[in-house]
Amino acid sequence: MNDSAVLLIDCPDRKGLVARVAGLLYEHGANILHADQHQDHEMGLFFMRVEWALNGHRSGGIAAQGAAGSAGAEPFDLERFQAAFAPLAAELNMRWKLTTSARRPRVALFCSQYLHCMADLLHRWRSGELHCEIPLIVSNHREVENLAGFYGVRFEHTPVTAATRAEAEARQLDLLAREGIELVVLARYMQILSPGFVARYPAAIINVHHSFLPAFTGARPYHAAHARGVKLIGATSHYVTEILDDGPIIEQDVARISHRDQVEDLIARGRDLERLVLSRAVRWHLDRRILCYGNKTVVFD
Amino acid sequence: MNDSAVLLIDCPDRKGLVARVAGLLYEHGANILHADQHQDHEMGLFFMRVEWALNGHRSGGIAAQGAAGSAGAEPFDLERFQAAFAPLAAELNMRWKLTTSARRPRVALFCSQYLHCMADLLHRWRSGELHCEIPLIVSNHREVENLAGFYGVRFEHTPVTAATRAEAEARQLDLLAREGIELVVLARYMQILSPGFVARYPAAIINVHHSFLPAFTGARPYHAAHARGVKLIGATSHYVTEILDDGPIIEQDVARISHRDQVEDLIARGRDLERLVLSRAVRWHLDRRILCYGNKTVVFD
Amino acid sequence: MNDSAVLLIDCPDRKGLVARVAGLLYEHGANILHADQHQDHEMGLFFMRVEWALNGHRSGGIAAQGAAGSAGAEPFDLERFQAAFAPLAAELNMRWKLTTSARRPRVALFCSQYLHCMADLLHRWRSGELHCEIPLIVSNHREVENLAGFYGVRFEHTPVTAATRAEAEARQLDLLAREGIELVVLARYMQILSPGFVARYPAAIINVHHSFLPAFTGARPYHAAHARGVKLIGATSHYVTEILDDGPIIEQDVARISHRDQVEDLIARGRDLERLVLSRAVRWHLDRRILCYGNKTVVFD
Amino acid sequence: MNDSAVLLIDCPDRKGLVARVAGLLYEHGANILHADQHQDHEMGLFFMRVEWALNGHRSGGIAAQGAAGSAGAEPFDLERFQAAFAPLAAELNMRWKLTTSARRPRVALFCSQYLHCMADLLHRWRSGELHCEIPLIVSNHREVENLAGFYGVRFEHTPVTAATRAEAEARQLDLLAREGIELVVLARYMQILSPGFVARYPAAIINVHHSFLPAFTGARPYHAAHARGVKLIGATSHYVTEILDDGPIIEQDVARISHRDQVEDLIARGRDLERLVLSRAVRWHLDRRILCYGNKTVVFD
Repeated sequence: MNDSAVLLIDCPDRKGLVARVAGLLYEHGANILHADQHQDHEMGLFFMRVEWALNGHRSGGIAAQGAAGSAGAEPFDLERFQAAFAPLAAELNMRWKLTTSARRPRVALFCSQYLHCMADLLHRWRSGELHCEIPLIVSNHREVENLAGFYGVRFEHTPVTAATRAEAEARQLDLLAREGIELVVLARYMQILSPGFVARYPAAIINVHHSFLPAFTGARPYHAAHARGVKLIGATSHYVTEILDDGPIIEQDVARISHRDQVEDLIARGRDLERLVLSRAVRWHLDRRILCYGNKTVVFD
Repeated sequence: MNDSAVLLIDCPDRKGLVARVAGLLYEHGANILHADQHQDHEMGLFFMRVEWALNGHRSGGIAAQGAAGSAGAEPFDLERFQAAFAPLAAELNMRWKLTTSARRPRVALFCSQYLHCMADLLHRWRSGELHCEIPLIVSNHREVENLAGFYGVRFEHTPVTAATRAEAEARQLDLLAREGIELVVLARYMQILSPGFVARYPAAIINVHHSFLPAFTGARPYHAAHARGVKLIGATSHYVTEILDDGPIIEQDVARISHRDQVEDLIARGRDLERLVLSRAVRWHLDRRILCYGNKTVVFD
Repeated sequence: MNDSAVLLIDCPDRKGLVARVAGLLYEHGANILHADQHQDHEMGLFFMRVEWALNGHRSGGIAAQGAAGSAGAEPFDLERFQAAFAPLAAELNMRWKLTTSARRPRVALFCSQYLHCMADLLHRWRSGELHCEIPLIVSNHREVENLAGFYGVRFEHTPVTAATRAEAEARQLDLLAREGIELVVLARYMQILSPGFVARYPAAIINVHHSFLPAFTGARPYHAAHARGVKLIGATSHYVTEILDDGPIIEQDVARISHRDQVEDLIARGRDLERLVLSRAVRWHLDRRILCYGNKTVVFD
Repeated sequence: MNDSAVLLIDCPDRKGLVARVAGLLYEHGANILHADQHQDHEMGLFFMRVEWALNGHRSGGIAAQGAAGSAGAEPFDLERFQAAFAPLAAELNMRWKLTTSARRPRVALFCSQYLHCMADLLHRWRSGELHCEIPLIVSNHREVENLAGFYGVRFEHTPVTAATRAEAEARQLDLLAREGIELVVLARYMQILSPGFVARYPAAIINVHHSFLPAFTGARPYHAAHARGVKLIGATSHYVTEILDDGPIIEQDVARISHRDQVEDLIARGRDLERLVLSRAVRWHLDRRILCYGNKTVVFD
């Protein structure tokens, strides 16, 4: 097993931040696997992601070259590190999150009638690309039921009408709570979530919008793109906020189209984009590569 | 010399259009080099571009295989064809344009302070990529003067202020008229042309906008893109219409950016996009590959 | 139902080909939906794809504008057209193929242990993107068995060892013959087919190779790409010929990588490319958009 | 002025490298602007690039938040830091290079008859994109002479024939030495440099090859790409080594082509790729973003 820990930090920028974090990790004998940091000079903010091995060795023959003596062969003492890091973080006004790869986040997938993103995510999950549990699929339609069954995931049908929206959301929130869901993925879920729902999962609901945001927000973006005569279409994955299609963008991609492409061709081309940008966003979130600030994201690669 | 003729057609769609146009060309012994057509089924429109040799042979050994006998070796009689085609076009309600490669359109380039598009277009012109004459460069600044001199192009300085806009445009229009300009290229010209100016050159003014339209219209699009936190930036070349940044799109392209990129990085990356989408639009226009209809373009490849 | 016919032609280039084919279709009252042609001037070859409606009307309100009178409302008489076209084709030395959308080709999918392309193709098929029947899945492993079951496709396990290769291929060929298979798709099938097998399905076996051909032919291309330090990886779909990884290329795509990407990252990124280029190739083949000549393809868009 | 220093390091990987380098910089009061590191786990190597301000402040209001007291307002003492860093580097077996933005490397551009890369580089240089001096242009032809004159760069004509190659190279090396050249850029220079020449400028000669390496090495790659029927063409910038087209790849890019594109179209499309990949490579080299190891590059972004 190759367990690792990931520490995500954001705080006001100041001198010595890398030195102090890296120094503390070094003192505790960490084998750093990846480290990345970013400064937003304009806003005076500092961001860091550092990942290190927990089980005393890493792939390759590096441990043998370790300078810190026998520490390389022992498991990393995460609790001891956390106890030492907390006061440093407080002193430096850090927001931080420390997680381990052994703990797999619990994810719920929402969809409506289009299943291409859902099928894609489930296949990636089954084949090991997505490091999470998927205990729950929710839909206001029944098209996904067979697919959920094939992958052995609980399916809950929550039909939504204008009259029953509040009730349906209450039921959905109850399901999420009972299943201990930490991330909600809207895989072409065509209902708008209420502000109250969104507020319960800050930076923890990922949506895919079928346009190159901020162009063509709202309904029927492919129709709008066709009407405008654009030469590229796009798709965007983003965290959901109270304002429709306005949350922090995680990933975008585009495909070339031509005058020959009708709306149905745009929709078909777009499906591939939607699959790609949504699955990347989910994977990066699960790999704890994303930090939100303001209305933007830092995505460490 | 390999002269060719290009016929561009658009008309209401109906059966037999290809058969009748191709049939007439065949009767006149045309060696068709390229032919392309497009139907907009939704609007019931038909578009066609056909290019054929004028000088009785084409590159490659094809002529030897010609089935139409000695016609292959004689120059194509364009006047006779045109006389026969006009009544057909009238019958079928065609808008059409017949041009020959021997006639090189006269183009004026406008710019302000940024010269990257200008330098790029001039180099492409000099090296033979753009089949046109460039007798005139106009700018509200003087930065481009040396470059114009190097390429031997007349430079006219037309400073513009709020108070002198009308006067400056009158002078520009006079210059364009005297030089017999058929296409105006706004190579990062940062002044907005008046509706009266635009009306004089319908589908004959090409602009480059430094965003992926319709996102980020208007001023400072890179700043807006940075503020929104997009993951791709774009550039768009389009025909200028009365409404700012709203004309028929000719070409778009995008480049990936990340959280590391500041506004100045976006501006630098964007320059490459601007060069590419503008130069492609100009070349396609000169090669008579573009048909405008509604607020869209057909670009034959 | 919107049935259509597609005529694919290739022949020595000569004057009047478009006129004569389009003229014949016009005489028979065809509502042409799409037409495209291509000339290879160097080799003196002509290629054409034309698609027309079979059931007397097409989407949109175009038929009402039809000039050919009542013909627009009647079904197209395909047999009568074919009888008239055959002598023309013979005169002009055409190779040609006339098919209708009502007839769905029968396709077999082959795979080994990696299922991403298989899962992708099956989902696209189920959701209507691929116009074919898929009566058969063949694999030298058993991983795909459940997936085949979910989609209701017959699964046949044909283990292959050096000693049993000939026998396994004989069994596979027998299965293909019994199921009336017209197209074989190698969806990451990791066995090399014998020349005898390949000869049975000329231009009817599509493979995906996990590199940007002709770079990195043969085994372990991602390892080779990593060793060479390339900055983009690619995938290629192509028709299978006797020579490994050398057949006519149908589609290619690439993705950017960096020094941070290890071989396993390349493999993961590559899976998305493989899915895309293989599914596009299969769709284009089924939509009869591809013509092979020499060792190349014409792909009409 | 915003002067900065860049430290590039590569060494055997071991624990604590980031901590020790960052710690030393912190002790000396460095305002770090950017820091990036990379580990090649397979080879046990560590790479780092760190950039910090030299003149006591940086853009934005960050300095006011500096924790290290008045150090933020004083110029950074580079010599003192270097004296302290050298023994650390020796202890840790580091190869390292410390440079400042105030010192602009001296670059020579070589070309033959095609001027698109040359014109592009010179314009970028003039407009401030490339932080270097360009005192010398060398060519075996005279086409570039006017362009060199326009940009005020010394032009040297060094014709090369099979018989005079050694002599020409001796003259070129002499010119480079006299001008104190540190980087040679082959902007479509169509002569092969001798091993002796190459050995004089290790990782300091950048070439652009007009294919997606390792496909289509050697002469006439666009012809080879056309013959193979690829669907994308590419260009590659790389450091020159003794083996032709085999040096460490810096950047690659591709463009989509179709069956309609003849060799001359590939050449035209390729020019845009060549400009882009060569100019990026030169800029990254000048910004000291590239580390070579084995036959690969790390390009810090």
